[in-house]
Amino acid sequence: MVDRERRGRRDRTGGRRKGRKPDGETPRATSSPADRGVDYRHLKNPLPLAKAFSDDQTEQIHRTALRVIEELGIRVLHDGARDRFRKAGATVDETSQMVRIDSVLVERALATAPSEFSLAGGNPGRTVQIGGTNLTFTPVGGPPHAIDSDRGKRPGTHEDFRDFVKLAQSFDVMHMLNPSVEPQDVANHSRHLEVTRDMLFLSDKPFFIYSRGEPQVRDCLELVRIARGLDETAFKAQPHCFTVINTNSPRQLDIPMCQGIMDFAAAGQPSMITPFTLAGAMAPITMVGALTLQHAEALAGVTLSQIVDPGAPVIYGSFTSNVDMKSGAPAFGTPEFVKAAFGAGQLARHVGLPWRGSAATASNAPDVQACYETLNSAWASMLGGVNVLIHAAGWLEGGLSASYEKFILDVEALQILAEACHSLPATEADSAFEAIAEVEPGGHFFGNTHTMERYQTAFYDPLVSDWSNFGQWTDNGSKTATERANGIWKRVLKEYEPPKLEDDARQAIDEFVERRISEGGAEPES
Amino acid sequence: MVDRERRGRRDRTGGRRKGRKPDGETPRATSSPADRGVDYRHLKNPLPLAKAFSDDQTEQIHRTALRVIEELGIRVLHDGARDRFRKAGATVDETSQMVRIDSVLVERALATAPSEFSLAGGNPGRTVQIGGTNLTFTPVGGPPHAIDSDRGKRPGTHEDFRDFVKLAQSFDVMHMLNPSVEPQDVANHSRHLEVTRDMLFLSDKPFFIYSRGEPQVRDCLELVRIARGLDETAFKAQPHCFTVINTNSPRQLDIPMCQGIMDFAAAGQPSMITPFTLAGAMAPITMVGALTLQHAEALAGVTLSQIVDPGAPVIYGSFTSNVDMKSGAPAFGTPEFVKAAFGAGQLARHVGLPWRGSAATASNAPDVQACYETLNSAWASMLGGVNVLIHAAGWLEGGLSASYEKFILDVEALQILAEACHSLPATEADSAFEAIAEVEPGGHFFGNTHTMERYQTAFYDPLVSDWSNFGQWTDNGSKTATERANGIWKRVLKEYEPPKLEDDARQAIDEFVERRISEGGAEPES
Repeated sequence: MVDRERRGRRDRTGGRRKGRKPDGETPRATSSPADRGVDYRHLKNPLPLAKAFSDDQTEQIHRTALRVIEELGIRVLHDGARDRFRKAGATVDETSQMVRIDSVLVERALATAPSEFSLAGGNPGRTVQIGGTNLTFTPVGGPPHAIDSDRGKRPGTHEDFRDFVKLAQSFDVMHMLNPSVEPQDVANHSRHLEVTRDMLFLSDKPFFIYSRGEPQVRDCLELVRIARGLDETAFKAQPHCFTVINTNSPRQLDIPMCQGIMDFAAAGQPSMITPFTLAGAMAPITMVGALTLQHAEALAGVTLSQIVDPGAPVIYGSFTSNVDMKSGAPAFGTPEFVKAAFGAGQLARHVGLPWRGSAATASNAPDVQACYETLNSAWASMLGGVNVLIHAAGWLEGGLSASYEKFILDVEALQILAEACHSLPATEADSAFEAIAEVEPGGHFFGNTHTMERYQTAFYDPLVSDWSNFGQWTDNGSKTATERANGIWKRVLKEYEPPKLEDDARQAIDEFVERRISEGGAEPES
Repeated sequence: MVDRERRGRRDRTGGRRKGRKPDGETPRATSSPADRGVDYRHLKNPLPLAKAFSDDQTEQIHRTALRVIEELGIRVLHDGARDRFRKAGATVDETSQMVRIDSVLVERALATAPSEFSLAGGNPGRTVQIGGTNLTFTPVGGPPHAIDSDRGKRPGTHEDFRDFVKLAQSFDVMHMLNPSVEPQDVANHSRHLEVTRDMLFLSDKPFFIYSRGEPQVRDCLELVRIARGLDETAFKAQPHCFTVINTNSPRQLDIPMCQGIMDFAAAGQPSMITPFTLAGAMAPITMVGALTLQHAEALAGVTLSQIVDPGAPVIYGSFTSNVDMKSGAPAFGTPEFVKAAFGAGQLARHVGLPWRGSAATASNAPDVQACYETLNSAWASMLGGVNVLIHAAGWLEGGLSASYEKFILDVEALQILAEACHSLPATEADSAFEAIAEVEPGGHFFGNTHTMERYQTAFYDPLVSDWSNFGQWTDNGSKTATERANGIWKRVLKEYEPPKLEDDARQAIDEFVERRISEGGAEPES
């Protein structure tokens, strides 16, 4: 009877629950993933892949996208990029800046773009594989604002930026760094230098570099080479960082985006070509139409990268969702988003490229809406076969704020997904009969041999979840998960430890940054 | 660049957002599911099914479970049930009450139990199909307490029970009724009569009946027959209601549970045989061990049902999760739960039975923890191929409370899943090229023909989600999704309309209930 399906029966445990900390915060994990043979740093997606389309429909969308690029064309605002396209064989109208790309050119690009590659960090343990069934998570990127329960919403600062790098560094389930919040208190001309130094000093993970014009990109790539001790050839042979290219949907590529594709391809570093195709706004209102446009724009960007450097790593990005047709406001984690994620994964696989998806929400608070939108996005992306899940922790308010509390809540959700990726040990079946035989009917397994041998490491030990009973929870202040997350990010920041970095590398980075700032740095270009 | 991936660009809409209600509540959906060809009442699960085990491992677990039943046995506390088992060929030890069931008997039962059947409600539109790829959702069942933001946690009342029936009736995505909260202010001897009358008067959906002894079950089944105008033969030929049988894990079936299996099988109504196998507590600490025990107990119950009436509808239930090994507290939506759901689905399919899973949480508040635990459970169950997802809306505090706010939040999540089950119209691909061609590079799709033809019905219109910007959201009181849910359940209850029920049926129900109460009703048996 269904009324037995509740926690009442656990009184069998004899109240062995350990005391909570006075602030109601969950104690830190005592059971590490490694104890269970789980490696958060290197995840493989074990899920079967969902389909939004039949294979024929996928091919039809691909063909339609090729027609869009060839017959309608893409407006390319960058003179040099149009020049590259023309020399490669595309038809270019300089007056309208329209580039019409023959499908042969696109197919040639798809033949040279790698389906899988690795991104290296500051030590070998941080190398992540991109493509195939490999799964990586990346925190929030892009918000101008930071938000937390104590200080509210405010313009992002340098301190906020560093905090988010430290948070991302502290959790193995975060595989790469994103520009989690814009440090608006750092001058424009030196900001790229400061944040790149931060990421190199405070983390050893592969990271993001903004495509805000060639001078900034050159500085940032040089810093990576200095930090990792690589010459240009060695750097080109091994990706260490990435950029995201958002097309100006519909059918437009602006100057810094083109420049970014070209600079990153030339340096052998991956671009994630991510059309900003919100159905009903910058893209057709049908999800099929929006995905067709996404596919066309992504292929145009991929083609440019391969024209510049055949074989350059490049990632098929998607951000397709819908908008609220009453207001035009973007929406995420919706049913339409779920289906778009399934379809985007199919399209990326159809062209043999790694796929970048997103975990996103339009909620203004780290609340239940933020949770179901983000988690629906994450599950849908995993079912779509995502290789790089961006904005997976801390993204709030449609990307306008980076939330400290949501970062922690999302890390919990991602750790659960990461643990679920790890298969059940096949050998356990061998002992099941003996384990069951050990306990009398109606008894319990708390103290038996089979349990005692395993109890310390058997299960995932949560970061945020509070499984205490209502009375204990009330005694501890009736804190919601979001309130508990507030205490957790503070503790994580307090306990943060920087990764090892050789003194000479550190000194060389400092020297480069100071010199470039003294030279005037580089303003962002648009 | 990743900083473009935010809502800023929607200012293109020219601020066409309609005014919010003063209480910050989302306006009701203007786009109905039917407008999009989506039928919440009849869902098919389109997802590919996840596997925790290889086919060989699944077979191994099945074989081990058969050994558990045959060699170790199940303690059966009900004299009549032991008698049934013995007469069918099982080995029964009356002293220890142990029943050892030959695997031939189990396999025979599995051969007669149907893999699919329907459950009828008060009108044809409410009939749901159980089994195959059919997907149904059922609200919270069992809690002794109700909880909401205004009144806090308190013992459930008759009014609460009726409220939850009304809430469940109000959403098509709720396919069946569960005993959402225990009406503790109704006397024990008449409670089953009162709540059955409520469900028949306030809803036309198939519903749950507690197995609390033969006299109560007889009353409840009689009420269903009266309400639906069926004689015993017609009733037996068409299930209209169901019960849940929780085994007393490990390896024990108590008196009312045995009685329930037998009564429901005899009446042709389905039991959901659901072992209460929390790994590390009532089941082995390994998930494989817990699932092996679950499988053994479920098969023992299924066998009893088929001994009583070969061909009786029966459902393979699972509730396997893990406990916090520091306290013994049950946990849900954990990585272990996710993998157990994949495995349970495999085991149910292995024996050809419909599968009942759960969406559950141990959180004490309708907060982000409640959301990610519930939603992980729901996604995992769907990936496991669940046919009946129980506790899918409103279940809180490990099943000790039914939450009004969480009910609404969960309905939103379920509606998103239901919409995502609906495939994208294949014909949309035909118009994608023309839709894209209609808009200039860098333009937008807000007012074009393709959009205008579709914008009113293109997308899911949310129940709870607030997609307004931070300023509007702040002006409306900075309400979290949980706070908005408070206003929504009140509105839904206010707007609730009872289903049609013929006057003579209503009168017959009243007469039966009043007569049985005057006769003393029936006390629950244990």
